[in-house]
Amino acid sequence: MLHYRTRRGSYHDSIVLMQLRVALADLPGIDDAGAVMGTPSNLEILRDGGLLPADLEDLAPDDLLVVVRTENGADEGQGDEAATAALDRVGELLARRRAESDADYRPKSLASALRMLPEARWVMVSVPGRYAAEVAREALERGRNVFLFSDGVPLEEEKALKETAAERGLLVMGPDCGTALVAGTGLGFANRVRRGPVGLVAASGTGLQAVAARVHALGSGISHALGTGGRDLSAEVGGASALRAIELLGRDPATGVLVLISKPPSPEITARMLAELAATAQRAGKPAVVCLLGRELPFRRIGPLRFAGSLSEAAALAVDLAGTNGSLPAPEESPHPGSLRGSLRGLFSGGTLAQEALLGWTALFGPVESNLKAPGSVPWDRSRPATGHRLLDLGDDALTVGRPHPMLEPSLVAERLAEEARDPGVAAVLLDVVLGDGAHPDPAAVLAPAVRQARATHPELEIVAVLIGTDLDPQDLGAQRHRLEEAGARVVDDLPAAQESLYRRCGPDSEPVSHPIDPSALEAPLAAVNVGVESFHEALIAQEAESAHVDWRPPAGGDERLASILRRMSATAAEAS
Amino acid sequence: MLHYRTRRGSYHDSIVLMQLRVALADLPGIDDAGAVMGTPSNLEILRDGGLLPADLEDLAPDDLLVVVRTENGADEGQGDEAATAALDRVGELLARRRAESDADYRPKSLASALRMLPEARWVMVSVPGRYAAEVAREALERGRNVFLFSDGVPLEEEKALKETAAERGLLVMGPDCGTALVAGTGLGFANRVRRGPVGLVAASGTGLQAVAARVHALGSGISHALGTGGRDLSAEVGGASALRAIELLGRDPATGVLVLISKPPSPEITARMLAELAATAQRAGKPAVVCLLGRELPFRRIGPLRFAGSLSEAAALAVDLAGTNGSLPAPEESPHPGSLRGSLRGLFSGGTLAQEALLGWTALFGPVESNLKAPGSVPWDRSRPATGHRLLDLGDDALTVGRPHPMLEPSLVAERLAEEARDPGVAAVLLDVVLGDGAHPDPAAVLAPAVRQARATHPELEIVAVLIGTDLDPQDLGAQRHRLEEAGARVVDDLPAAQESLYRRCGPDSEPVSHPIDPSALEAPLAAVNVGVESFHEALIAQEAESAHVDWRPPAGGDERLASILRRMSATAAEAS
Repeated sequence: MLHYRTRRGSYHDSIVLMQLRVALADLPGIDDAGAVMGTPSNLEILRDGGLLPADLEDLAPDDLLVVVRTENGADEGQGDEAATAALDRVGELLARRRAESDADYRPKSLASALRMLPEARWVMVSVPGRYAAEVAREALERGRNVFLFSDGVPLEEEKALKETAAERGLLVMGPDCGTALVAGTGLGFANRVRRGPVGLVAASGTGLQAVAARVHALGSGISHALGTGGRDLSAEVGGASALRAIELLGRDPATGVLVLISKPPSPEITARMLAELAATAQRAGKPAVVCLLGRELPFRRIGPLRFAGSLSEAAALAVDLAGTNGSLPAPEESPHPGSLRGSLRGLFSGGTLAQEALLGWTALFGPVESNLKAPGSVPWDRSRPATGHRLLDLGDDALTVGRPHPMLEPSLVAERLAEEARDPGVAAVLLDVVLGDGAHPDPAAVLAPAVRQARATHPELEIVAVLIGTDLDPQDLGAQRHRLEEAGARVVDDLPAAQESLYRRCGPDSEPVSHPIDPSALEAPLAAVNVGVESFHEALIAQEAESAHVDWRPPAGGDERLASILRRMSATAAEAS
Repeated sequence: MLHYRTRRGSYHDSIVLMQLRVALADLPGIDDAGAVMGTPSNLEILRDGGLLPADLEDLAPDDLLVVVRTENGADEGQGDEAATAALDRVGELLARRRAESDADYRPKSLASALRMLPEARWVMVSVPGRYAAEVAREALERGRNVFLFSDGVPLEEEKALKETAAERGLLVMGPDCGTALVAGTGLGFANRVRRGPVGLVAASGTGLQAVAARVHALGSGISHALGTGGRDLSAEVGGASALRAIELLGRDPATGVLVLISKPPSPEITARMLAELAATAQRAGKPAVVCLLGRELPFRRIGPLRFAGSLSEAAALAVDLAGTNGSLPAPEESPHPGSLRGSLRGLFSGGTLAQEALLGWTALFGPVESNLKAPGSVPWDRSRPATGHRLLDLGDDALTVGRPHPMLEPSLVAERLAEEARDPGVAAVLLDVVLGDGAHPDPAAVLAPAVRQARATHPELEIVAVLIGTDLDPQDLGAQRHRLEEAGARVVDDLPAAQESLYRRCGPDSEPVSHPIDPSALEAPLAAVNVGVESFHEALIAQEAESAHVDWRPPAGGDERLASILRRMSATAAEAS
C-alpha cells in the first residue's frame, strides 16, 4: 500500500533525499520509501508507473513528494498507522539533518556567497542539469573557475561555457565532472591522497580516482588532478578544457610529471591533444604519460610521451618517472617536433607494416588518407592528388594488376617516390625495404637512384627507410643499408624507430593556447562556493578547505517564464552595479 | 608507338614476365615494355585502355602477349626497326632464362612431381588464383601440407580447403600467405634467420618477416614461422589454420616460446584464439607473446600471455622470454583457466573502470553484453535476462533516474548482486568499490551483507571487488577491505589484478583441436613440390632444401569447359588407382 505526502516549496538536493529515503525505510512497519522533487521528469516517471495520484499532478520542481510503502500482508489499519507515523517524521528528519550541518548563515545567491568568501577561486555546481549552465555562466562572469558536477547540460551550453572560460582565462571542469583534486583538496568524489609531483588530466570519474589512488599507494602523490567531463574530448567540444588544463599543469611548479587519462578521444582531436601534451612536456622539461583506453598505439614511447595500456600502468609509469621520493625527473633529451613542416607520405610494400605505421600516424599527426583503415584514417581517393598525409599499401591487389608486387620489383615504389618529391608540400616519405629469399635480388639498385633523384628534386625531403632483413639474407644487408644511406635516406631497423624519427622532424606543432588559465586556479588553500549537493560543502570543510554553501532553490519555484524575467532583471542589475 | 607480338601456348609465371619486361625495356630504342598472359582480366584492362588491337581479342590464358613502346620523337621507321629487333629476341630471352635454371627434367603434373620427390611434406602453390584451389586440393588429397601463396582464391574455397586439411591432419598456410619458415627453410618471401626457440604464427607477409628478422637481430632465432593468410582470422574462416598452427607449435620440441602476430582478428574469434594460445602455453610450459595490431588490450600480461603493442616489441618480449642463449624459459606458474564454468557479470559504479574491464573481457572471454561499447560487445537488452557474460555501468544516467548514483549509495549494486547470485549459470561477479570524499561513508555496510547473502545463495560464486581507495580516505580502507573479505569477496587493488584473478578461475577452455597436424610437417630437411612461381623453387634449392618444380600451365590451355571435363576424368582415374 502506498502513502503520499507533499511539502510545498521545500527544495532538497539528491543526497539529502537519499538520506531521507534510507531513514524512512528503516522505520517500523515501512517496507520501502521514496523522496523526490516534483520535477517534470520525476512526475512523468511516476505517471508512467501508474504511481501518481491525480491530486499531485500540479507539483512544482521545488515541491517535495514523499512516498512510503507499508509491508505486504500487514493489516491495512496497522499499515496506515505506520505510514502516518513515518510521514509525520519527515519534517523532523529533514530538520535534524539541517541542524547537524547548518549552524551558520546560508547565502541565498552566488553573489552573496562570493561576498562572504571573496577569495574563492572556484564555484562547484551540482544543481539539476537544466539549471546548471545558468549557475556556471554566472560563476564565470564573476571571474571564478567552475567545477561542474551536474550532468544533463546540453552540448551547446557546454561549448558556450567553455568559450566564455577561454576568453576569461578560466577553467571549466565538466559538465558531468565527478571528481578533481586541486592543491590537495578533493572536489566532488575524490580519494584523499598525499600531494606530490604527478599532475593528472582526465575526462572525469573513476579513471581519475583509480590513477590517483594508485599513485598514492605506490608512494608518490598528486599535485592536481583536473577533470574535463566525458564530452570534452569529443569532436564537437574539441578537448577545449583538456588542452587548457594540460597547458596549465605545464606551468605549474608543483607538477613534475603530466598524465592524460581518457577513453579514446575522437580521432579528429587525438593528434591535437598529443601534440599539446608533447609540446607542454618539452617546454617544461616534464615527461608525460598517456592512457587512451581502447585506442591502440603501436609504440610505448614517442618523444617525451609514454603510453600506458591500463590505468594502473599509467600510475606506475608516472611514479617511475617522478622518482619514488617525489623529486622532479631530469628533462628528456629534447626532440624538436615541428622542425619540418608539411605532409607525410608512406609507401609500403607490406600490409602489416603499413597498418602499424598507420595506427601511429593517425594518432600523432591527425587524419591520414590510406587504402588501409585505422581510427582517424580517410579512404584514399585516387581521383585527386593528396593534400595532407597519405600512407599506401602498394602491395594491395588493386595497385598490382598487371604489375609485379613491389617486393618482387620495387619500381612501383620508385615511381611513387618521384611523384611525392615533385610535391613541395611533402616533408617526409617513409618506405619499407624488405629483403630475403623471394624478394628482389637488389632493391637498393632500384631504390637508391630513386632516393637520390627525389632528394635532388626536393632537397628538404626527409626519406626514412625501414630495412627489414638479416645479415644472412642473400641481398647483403650492410651493402643495402650503405647504398640507401649514401643516396640520402635515413635507414632504421624497425618501425618504432622510424616513427620516432618522423616525429622528431615532422611532429605537429601545438597551437598556442589563447588566454591561458590564471594560475590562481591552483593556489592553496582551496576556497570554493558550493551550489547544489550539500555534502560537497561538508566534504570541503572536513578537508579543512574553505567553503560557502548557497541555499539554492530552483529559480522562481521552478516557473520557467518567471525565471526568465528574473534572469533579465538580474542581468540589468549586474550591469548597473 | 606500340608494337605487339603474341606467342600462343607459352605460359610463364609473373616473375618470369617481370624479368622479360625489364630485359626488353633495356634494349636499344625501347622506351617501355609489357609482357602479360592473355587472361580475361588482363585483356579487359588492355581493352579498357584502348590498347588491345582487334586481332588479339581471341587470346587464351596460356598465350603470351608482349608489347614494346618505341621512343617518342624517334623516326618512325627507326622505331619500327628497334621494335622488331626487340620482339625478335623474346624467344631467346625466355630460352636463356630457361637454360640458366632448368637443366633437369620438369614434371608436368603434381602427381609426377610427388613421384620424383616422395619425401615432400609440402606443396607450394603460386599459380593464378582461379586455378590455385584446385592445385591445393589435389595436394591435400595426396596427403601433403600446403603453402598457398596465390591470392584471389574465393572465400568458400578457402573454407573447403581448410576443412579438408583438418580432416586429414594437415596444414594449409594461406591463401595469400606470402611467407613462412619451416625447419629453417624459407617459403615464399622469407628472411634468412638462424634457428632458435621462437615459434611464430602470423597472418602473413611483412608482419611475420619483421618479427623474424628482429628476433634474429636480437641474437635469438626462429624454430618455425607459420603463416595463415590474411583472411584466416576473419569470423568466416574462424582462425582454422591459426588454431591448428598454435597447437602444432605447442607440441613441437624445437619451439620454446609461442608468438601470435595479427592485424586485429574478428572480435568473435579473438577470445577463442587467445584461449587456444593460453591453453597450449600452459600445457606445454611455454610462454606466449601476442601482438594484435590495433586491438587495445588493457593489460601487459594475463596468465601465460604477454601482450605487445608493436611488431618490434613482440620480438623483444619473445627473445627476452627465450633467454638470449636460446635456452627454454622456466614454465610460468600455472594458472588453471576454465576451473570455473559459467558466465561473468560486472557491476560497476564508474564508467572508466567499466570500460577498461570491458576491453579485457571481450578479448579474453568472447561476446559481452553491456551498456558500454567495445570491440566484441553486444548492446544490453534490458527486456530479457542475460544468458552469457554481461558488464554494466550502473552509474549510467538511464539506470539512476530517481535513484542515487551507486557511488553515493551502493544499494543498486547490492540488489543486482543478489539477482546475479540467483542465476546458477553465473560463475563470477566483478564489482568496483570506490571510497573517498563524496562517496558513501561506509560502502561495506551495504555491500558486505550483500556479498555474504550472494555466497549463501550460490556458494560457488566468485565475487571479486576492486577497491579504489587510500589509507587517508575517511572510510578506513583496511576496515572496508577486511569486511568485504570476511563476507567472502576476493578484494584486489586494481583492475589488472582483478582480470588476472577472473582469468585464473573462469578463463575459457580451449576446445581440443580435432585431427591435430602430423608433426612431419615440421621435419627437417624440408622437401617441397613447387607449383607456380619458378623463383620459389630456385630459392629452395639455394637454401639447400629439396624441391621439385612442376612445369604448370593453365589446364586445357585456359579452356574452362574442357578443364572441367579433364578434372572429372582425372578424379575418376585417381579413384581407380
